[in-house]
Amino acid sequence: MDSIIHQHPNWETPYFASIFTTQLGENLDGYDETSDRMAELVEKYDGFMGMHSARDENGYGITVCYWKSEDSINAWRNDLEHQTAQAKGKTGWYSEYTIQIAEVKRSTFFKAV
Amino acid sequence: MDSIIHQHPNWETPYFASIFTTQLGENLDGYDETSDRMAELVEKYDGFMGMHSARDENGYGITVCYWKSEDSINAWRNDLEHQTAQAKGKTGWYSEYTIQIAEVKRSTFFKAV
Repeated sequence: MDSIIHQHPNWETPYFASIFTTQLGENLDGYDETSDRMAELVEKYDGFMGMHSARDENGYGITVCYWKSEDSINAWRNDLEHQTAQAKGKTGWYSEYTIQIAEVKRSTFFKAV
Repeated sequence: MDSIIHQHPNWETPYFASIFTTQLGENLDGYDETSDRMAELVEKYDGFMGMHSARDENGYGITVCYWKSEDSINAWRNDLEHQTAQAKGKTGWYSEYTIQIAEVKRSTFFKAV
């Protein structure tokens, strides 16, 4: 197997990452719809570059969003529809979560060819 | 439901994160053993603070490791046993991956109580 390694396409450092880890609880009423809606909404935000997301069979998930600036992260945090979703996350869907805001300094991308 | 929000316990900013996203391929010979061994080995590294990890049912996973400094990340990258594992990842287990090194500036932790 041959392989290539290069910078992540079009993601020039430095850029910013929001690392959101969540443990889903038992009451997930409305969760899927809201999650889909947030994914759709965030795409339209100025400065949003992309997302990596994985959730395991126990409801534990990590979503990393990439942003051109901290200002763009703050604008998204203050979005009214997003704030309603955040409130529901805290009072219902998530038993636990962490949010970390980070500045990405180096990135590498590998694809087997 | 009441709730608490505070800083991630004992994780004083700034600290560093390595964000490793991987797509598993078809040949996973030796993958589970090596993955377990790396998780055991990294724990012993000076500057290692902790890890978040999730993999979905399609073999797509995100592992975020937290470190006190970039030097500690570099030392782990250059670990000989880890380098052997990295080589196997590229020639066999992973069809695609990204590695991003970031400086965490803010963190929030939430737990429903």
